[in-house]
Amino acid sequence: MKIIDIIERKKLGFELSEDEIRFFINGIMDNTIEDYQTSALLMAIYFKGMTLDETAYLTKYMVESGETLNLSDVSNNIIDKHSTGGVGDKITLIFLPLMAASGMYTAKLSGRGLGHTGGTIDKLESIPGFRTDLSIKEFKEKVKKYKTAIAAQTLSLAPADGKLYALRDVTSTVDIIPLIASSVVSKKIASGANHIILDVKYGSGAFIKTPQDAVKLSDIMVQVGKRLNRNICAVISSMNQPLGRAIGNSVEIQEVIEFLKGNIEDDLKEITYTLCHCAFEKAGKFKTKEDSFKYLDDLISSGKALEKFKEIIISQNGDPDIIDDYLKLPQASIKYEIKSEKDGFIKNIDALKIAKACKNLGAGREKKSDSIDYSAGIYLTQKQSEPVKQGETIAVLYTNKKSAIKEAEKLVLSAYEITDKQYKKSSLIYKII
Amino acid sequence: MKIIDIIERKKLGFELSEDEIRFFINGIMDNTIEDYQTSALLMAIYFKGMTLDETAYLTKYMVESGETLNLSDVSNNIIDKHSTGGVGDKITLIFLPLMAASGMYTAKLSGRGLGHTGGTIDKLESIPGFRTDLSIKEFKEKVKKYKTAIAAQTLSLAPADGKLYALRDVTSTVDIIPLIASSVVSKKIASGANHIILDVKYGSGAFIKTPQDAVKLSDIMVQVGKRLNRNICAVISSMNQPLGRAIGNSVEIQEVIEFLKGNIEDDLKEITYTLCHCAFEKAGKFKTKEDSFKYLDDLISSGKALEKFKEIIISQNGDPDIIDDYLKLPQASIKYEIKSEKDGFIKNIDALKIAKACKNLGAGREKKSDSIDYSAGIYLTQKQSEPVKQGETIAVLYTNKKSAIKEAEKLVLSAYEITDKQYKKSSLIYKII
Repeated sequence: MKIIDIIERKKLGFELSEDEIRFFINGIMDNTIEDYQTSALLMAIYFKGMTLDETAYLTKYMVESGETLNLSDVSNNIIDKHSTGGVGDKITLIFLPLMAASGMYTAKLSGRGLGHTGGTIDKLESIPGFRTDLSIKEFKEKVKKYKTAIAAQTLSLAPADGKLYALRDVTSTVDIIPLIASSVVSKKIASGANHIILDVKYGSGAFIKTPQDAVKLSDIMVQVGKRLNRNICAVISSMNQPLGRAIGNSVEIQEVIEFLKGNIEDDLKEITYTLCHCAFEKAGKFKTKEDSFKYLDDLISSGKALEKFKEIIISQNGDPDIIDDYLKLPQASIKYEIKSEKDGFIKNIDALKIAKACKNLGAGREKKSDSIDYSAGIYLTQKQSEPVKQGETIAVLYTNKKSAIKEAEKLVLSAYEITDKQYKKSSLIYKII
Repeated sequence: MKIIDIIERKKLGFELSEDEIRFFINGIMDNTIEDYQTSALLMAIYFKGMTLDETAYLTKYMVESGETLNLSDVSNNIIDKHSTGGVGDKITLIFLPLMAASGMYTAKLSGRGLGHTGGTIDKLESIPGFRTDLSIKEFKEKVKKYKTAIAAQTLSLAPADGKLYALRDVTSTVDIIPLIASSVVSKKIASGANHIILDVKYGSGAFIKTPQDAVKLSDIMVQVGKRLNRNICAVISSMNQPLGRAIGNSVEIQEVIEFLKGNIEDDLKEITYTLCHCAFEKAGKFKTKEDSFKYLDDLISSGKALEKFKEIIISQNGDPDIIDDYLKLPQASIKYEIKSEKDGFIKNIDALKIAKACKNLGAGREKKSDSIDYSAGIYLTQKQSEPVKQGETIAVLYTNKKSAIKEAEKLVLSAYEITDKQYKKSSLIYKII
């Protein structure tokens, strides 16, 4: 078998066989296939696509290209949740305690992504003392004992995907839906999940821009997951506006705690509860959305979910006092209020602009080696459909970089769309697959 | 400017600007663009094509990427001829003496190609003593004095094209018509030609398989040449059957001499005369094909063309005695006659199969370092539309490799299509642009 023949066949639109895909992934791993050949194949895949069979084989061999986590000695019903990424996306941190309080196992390994704000691991590390560098042994023990744990990914999961991604990133071949699908699903499978709950976002603050593409991606991920014997579902939702009111790291932890205390933002509730309901459905716990939502409301109002969150913090060496004293979280030296320039109603808040402002303030990183200012962030005091008066505060910036404020303020102001008419908020959820 | 943006723009089908194409070629030459980025761009070009403007800019900057030969001190009417390559293609060796005998300047630098049989340079080197390693100074002096010279290409002409080709060869991106066009035209421009005569072949023995693709390629080459201020024309002809009867190296030299002596094969005459007529037309020498053909017939019958060929041989240190004594050319130790398996008429002789047989016998090379057996080759005693009897010789193999004969015979026999009905030979020429 020769890689040039595989490139030629894909270029002409033929379906690659299982053998050809295995040959390709093996060649990437043992460096017998040159990067310039891989990138030519990737570009041919951009134009000719991949069938479901091809995508499933690719996923399978990417899983087999590296280490895998075996959690079968903990449970055969391990849930993993994955978000394709959004602005203000703190849903994992609400989802995990809710799941654990429901008696369901979740095991979450999380990469330390680049982006406008930190990832889930960074958000947790803004809690003083919180350890995410768990050994595999510790991780498994905690999942067994507390039903959940969350750790930075240290295993080499699906390294072929990592190699492919590095090349896609520099050859303009990132936006290939079957490759995105196999990248996500291969990592979830390699990290030992039996049930995979996908939070797929589209819109200004997501890397997928249209609901159509989100559906296409979700469809493929769900079908590939099923092909590889996993229970899998995808909730597709809009990410045109930030989720919740807090965007950053420690400010998001604060919003998570408020949620668990019962001060609930509608948008966070809609997405989180729907993801939980999917998990309940897969596990046969509840059949209707109404039953699931009522049960989740009870977990909040009874304080059980908050108690679980406290247990997670303690279990991973964090300071549980932050729950009642937010001043124990990292504090920014500057707190700057942005005022509305006119009267009206908030029609929209552009998620991408808010994210960029947030990064300017110090909350994100561009390179893996960049450090994050956990205290930096933005709090949106006014959100969609809410009324606002000229001169009234619409958002608060938190930062230690005075020089960044002017540009961030400009971005935030341009993100807010204020109109005379009041538009009703609509459901964020587009489809569940 | 960043190469990833250029890849992205081409991927989305945008036309690249002159600046972007210059940036790309410069980046290839100074190695600031990685091979994996170049190959991704090449594959995007395969799918999205290039406009005439893009192809002309690419050609221009490929010319500028290396050395160029300035022949303006010799003449401002230098003709160069290029063939896209065929089986039994000895036309350059007839074209050059005819042109020189007409008083027209031709300067031919030729690469030492890989292939089933040797290139023009190899064929000439089968003449004892013949020097093709002329210095640029010698080459120019000879063109000035004898109106023609032919030498192996030693200048680094359009090296960006060489780098691109090496990558295309291993990434399944050879068959991109605008890239083939700019490759050919850039080399001709860099070698100092004012008038470019293109011999574009399609069919089983050519790398272009259909007349439609040959027209597409020719159209682009002619337009790009004109855009870069060259007189240029393309003769498109069929290469489904070998040209002439001899295929190899010294056997082809022998056929060239026979032609110049007046023993003319129709197919060789049709193509060669038409190419000469194009040159005459460009130079304003003759307007009608009839006039050109009559003039060329006279150059043959008067012995002037043969005299010119002898002059070229002497000028480049070859042994002119070969003209009257073919035994002075390299002789194969084995001469093997292939007999027809049935009665009938030759309908077709597959060029590619004959070429492969020829290579088996030792006439070609796979790697640049391979040596060629100049004496190896095939002579087709029977050609298209000629009658044949069972047991009659249809072809003769020349070789020093006894072990190669069986396979070569099988190939030659399968190349011959013999039918009951006699089909008339038709014109090889499809179109002149």
